[in-house]
Amino acid sequence: MGNQTIYFKKQPRIVATSTIAGPKECEGVVGRYVETALADDMFGESTFEKAECKMLSHVIDGAIANAGLKREEIDMIVSGDLLNQIISASFAARDFSIPFLGVYGACSTMAESLAVAAAFIEGGLTRRAVAATGSHFASAERQYRYPLELGCTRPPQSQWTVTAAGASLVCAEGEGVKITAATLGKVVDFGITDVNNMGAAMAPAAADTILAHFRETKESVEDYDLIVTGDLGALGSRILKDLTWEKGLDISKNHVDCGEIIYNVIEDEFQGGSGAGCSAVVLNSYLYTKMMAGSLKRILFAATGALLSTVSSGQGESIPCITHAVVLER
Amino acid sequence: MGNQTIYFKKQPRIVATSTIAGPKECEGVVGRYVETALADDMFGESTFEKAECKMLSHVIDGAIANAGLKREEIDMIVSGDLLNQIISASFAARDFSIPFLGVYGACSTMAESLAVAAAFIEGGLTRRAVAATGSHFASAERQYRYPLELGCTRPPQSQWTVTAAGASLVCAEGEGVKITAATLGKVVDFGITDVNNMGAAMAPAAADTILAHFRETKESVEDYDLIVTGDLGALGSRILKDLTWEKGLDISKNHVDCGEIIYNVIEDEFQGGSGAGCSAVVLNSYLYTKMMAGSLKRILFAATGALLSTVSSGQGESIPCITHAVVLER
Repeated sequence: MGNQTIYFKKQPRIVATSTIAGPKECEGVVGRYVETALADDMFGESTFEKAECKMLSHVIDGAIANAGLKREEIDMIVSGDLLNQIISASFAARDFSIPFLGVYGACSTMAESLAVAAAFIEGGLTRRAVAATGSHFASAERQYRYPLELGCTRPPQSQWTVTAAGASLVCAEGEGVKITAATLGKVVDFGITDVNNMGAAMAPAAADTILAHFRETKESVEDYDLIVTGDLGALGSRILKDLTWEKGLDISKNHVDCGEIIYNVIEDEFQGGSGAGCSAVVLNSYLYTKMMAGSLKRILFAATGALLSTVSSGQGESIPCITHAVVLER
Repeated sequence: MGNQTIYFKKQPRIVATSTIAGPKECEGVVGRYVETALADDMFGESTFEKAECKMLSHVIDGAIANAGLKREEIDMIVSGDLLNQIISASFAARDFSIPFLGVYGACSTMAESLAVAAAFIEGGLTRRAVAATGSHFASAERQYRYPLELGCTRPPQSQWTVTAAGASLVCAEGEGVKITAATLGKVVDFGITDVNNMGAAMAPAAADTILAHFRETKESVEDYDLIVTGDLGALGSRILKDLTWEKGLDISKNHVDCGEIIYNVIEDEFQGGSGAGCSAVVLNSYLYTKMMAGSLKRILFAATGALLSTVSSGQGESIPCITHAVVLER
């Protein structure tokens, strides 16, 4: 072995999804595919963190309901988020009497949780698992950067953390989008220290996983309708295309980044969206709908994550990143 | 299904382990089984967080070397820790060119990472995976409670976060301790809000998973040489024994808690040890040695975790907890 790519012979499938997003997110082109559009990003809660948790709980329930199932028919929840000690996921799981596996992959969580859920199904250990994640602009800004009340200016290389959550119900059988393989990421660090430039930090990790995927599977870019990255943003996407092109892989024709397409960039979203909820909501709304309708047949979903913390940055560390990719087929 | 217990028919096995611990930890009875005893808990680093990360990196390398393998023969690292954004695990994984799955289960991480590694092996997806976790007294105190420099008094119900790390190399074949089953935990919250009383918070989650295990497997307590919990401490262990006894399961004869046995409680460790490194070091040193020697043949290893954060506690939330259990056989 020594390969990063694993193959799911049983082809676990996503039989249902559910999504929720804030008002700003729902204005964009992806927005109209979102199941629940929030008019207020507090979602009736007293804090941003509680709103984020409630969004996650909402989509976990939504994915189960959209499959016509009940909570007690679900074997496992695999989830994580960006907050310290993944409190959104842990507290959301408290609402359910379902075994819970907490994962942390920053904004790569949607792909990581799908790969873990698929692995348990491949092993015949689990029949039905929910993979879910989300993020909230205000809780992420407060934790990673500055409280909103400070009114700090955002630099042009920055992205806007998406207020959204998405869940996939992954099952051993049924009609849906099949998970046929995954390329698990290594931690890659190119020495970027600017916490406002996540795209540049994550692009090398995305390139590493995508290059490994095509090297190991011996497939070509044309075998995919889309090569989707999570939240590189406009700048990060350009860097990714440069890095892969340098290694002889031209993905420019069918690459798209969830962060780049989620907003109508009109004010200070700058490079586009970021956050675990970014790729989660785009996958589980727009991409899933297109795949179920047959207009997208095969995509590589590569969610990108920056594994920094305020403590590591404060201690002078650079930003290690990771990208996990899953192959989705209709 | 609907069961929490999963069975690993391929019996993935722990073929090697590695452990490291601080000076205080090495004074206890478990201490003499630890592979690397630190004279200084800074481990030559400039910060506690960097020391914690280095310990984790050290045991991951140690487990690989103890199996006579090289880094490039390892398919996956499954790891997490207590620090925000699991920086110890993520930054440790940066040292290795090996696919990385980040998990978060607080102090239940050792059992969670073993279960995830075993699941990937059961599915035929992975041949060799390292499951590892650790914690550091000083980094945990600073993050969860107060900086040590403040010199805050510790209440008698408190525990002492263990400075240690442990790693298990889990393989599809080879001589070792077999992982034959796992009971995945649900998030359980009994409404405890005292962040100094982790034992009381976690005991109901431990009871929930242990009761589910015996209910679903139809085994009896006597089928195990030991029923090991992670870090309930002295008080938490007594609560666990009460809670299970009330439900008709008497585990008192062969229950032991890693937190209760790791220290010679002589000063302010009070209820004993806690932290992700607590059960990790006891399992991978003392228990693994006893199992390989044949004096322990079958144990239930139930690692306990408190899923709180300073943000959730600050917002008035109680402490949700989780316990994952794995069955280990020689």
